[in-house]
Amino acid sequence: MRAREGISAATTWLGIVLVSAERGEAVLTMATRPEMTNRQDVVHGGFIAALADTAMGWALSSTLPDGERHYSFDLKLSFIAAARIGEGLRAVARVLHRGHRTGVADCRVVGEEGRLVATATASFFIRQQVGNNE
Amino acid sequence: MRAREGISAATTWLGIVLVSAERGEAVLTMATRPEMTNRQDVVHGGFIAALADTAMGWALSSTLPDGERHYSFDLKLSFIAAARIGEGLRAVARVLHRGHRTGVADCRVVGEEGRLVATATASFFIRQQVGNNE
Amino acid sequence: MRAREGISAATTWLGIVLVSAERGEAVLTMATRPEMTNRQDVVHGGFIAALADTAMGWALSSTLPDGERHYSFDLKLSFIAAARIGEGLRAVARVLHRGHRTGVADCRVVGEEGRLVATATASFFIRQQVGNNE
Amino acid sequence: MRAREGISAATTWLGIVLVSAERGEAVLTMATRPEMTNRQDVVHGGFIAALADTAMGWALSSTLPDGERHYSFDLKLSFIAAARIGEGLRAVARVLHRGHRTGVADCRVVGEEGRLVATATASFFIRQQVGNNE
Repeated sequence: MRAREGISAATTWLGIVLVSAERGEAVLTMATRPEMTNRQDVVHGGFIAALADTAMGWALSSTLPDGERHYSFDLKLSFIAAARIGEGLRAVARVLHRGHRTGVADCRVVGEEGRLVATATASFFIRQQVGNNE
Repeated sequence: MRAREGISAATTWLGIVLVSAERGEAVLTMATRPEMTNRQDVVHGGFIAALADTAMGWALSSTLPDGERHYSFDLKLSFIAAARIGEGLRAVARVLHRGHRTGVADCRVVGEEGRLVATATASFFIRQQVGNNE
Repeated sequence: MRAREGISAATTWLGIVLVSAERGEAVLTMATRPEMTNRQDVVHGGFIAALADTAMGWALSSTLPDGERHYSFDLKLSFIAAARIGEGLRAVARVLHRGHRTGVADCRVVGEEGRLVATATASFFIRQQVGNNE
Repeated sequence: MRAREGISAATTWLGIVLVSAERGEAVLTMATRPEMTNRQDVVHGGFIAALADTAMGWALSSTLPDGERHYSFDLKLSFIAAARIGEGLRAVARVLHRGHRTGVADCRVVGEEGRLVATATASFFIRQQVGNNE
């Protein structure tokens, strides 16, 4: 149950649930709530970024042996449609490249009725020890 | 006190404080806390994304007349150094371009002792009515 | 033969060939040559960017009625492996989102033996008249 | 005359001229020409990408000891205004971060009368041996 062990304080706080993560693909959900409301009365883009970043991280993790860590180096989102407060979001991420030292993944975030809310890509470093990017 | 009126539920929840926003520049702070911890025991990148996105939105807002809204369309982050839990973060955003229909901003997120944690850019649509991107 | 009419001076100069563009997907090729050599003796990333940008533009064009124009607003590339001088490159682009005013596409650029050279995404404005972004 | 030695076939072909590169900042120019025309009769974004990528590479090079190489890993552009064919472009790049293994730079591309044409950011790997990203 590697996935379950890996759930972090951040994802618990945000209500992110890991549905599956294997062979370079990950599916996660997030139930949006009133605390996530931005100035336009929809879900703040930062939470969508958090969901997508987490999903891509899990997709990459699923391709790595135990003990190897990854660090996202860049994260890019395209916000396509607003997410309504209370709406359930679903992120589907997959690995596009997994090398010895780097990885690239992309992600789709969809709302109810399958409406596309955002797309994302991320680049990762892969390494064995814990630390920051430098 | 336009800035104060504009504080949202999301930024309150995240502990984001607006220090200043005028003439295309905005400064915001965020006190990181244990709920923001990721699987590597540092601040989850999603919260850094939320801070940067908010700061760039405020920088752009400061250049717009009342009644004009903006919607971020893309958001790009480069994560440079990990942010430690408990560390205070500061985001400084500025507008690079403000046209009739689009805007572009960038942002630096720094930690304690001025350590560069992340850089970001965002693109915005500008328009008068409320709605999603389409 | 809309595709053929649309071939530009730039794509001709770069040796970019449109293989197909329909229903939101486009395939293009580019034969790299010595003039494209960078300081590391491989293909300069700018040409890979040009190929990907062109492919995503064609994918989007294939979804638009005649007379509607599109303008790329942002372009993001992840360079995964070097492309060798002389190597034939192939770009496969597809539309992820096509709304009334905006579009989002992604692209994979592969080299010989199917090696993944780069991935890309782009955002577009869609409109009817000619002009720049503002 | 390190700068001069480093001029590549690609930059010569594109008409890119290195004006200066020192202490993390680089200035380059490019004279656009008819071969660079896209389907909208303005400069193809790929050439602007090539100019910006080159400028950020030179900015980073200027901070590295001889023998250290860098490889761009991601490149992100925001296209703000069209560049006219024949217009002279100028790119000003600067390093935002230079660590032991990674670097981040940004760039502004301006046209005549100082009109902002594009902004860009790039991430780099830094290492001593020649090779591709993996």
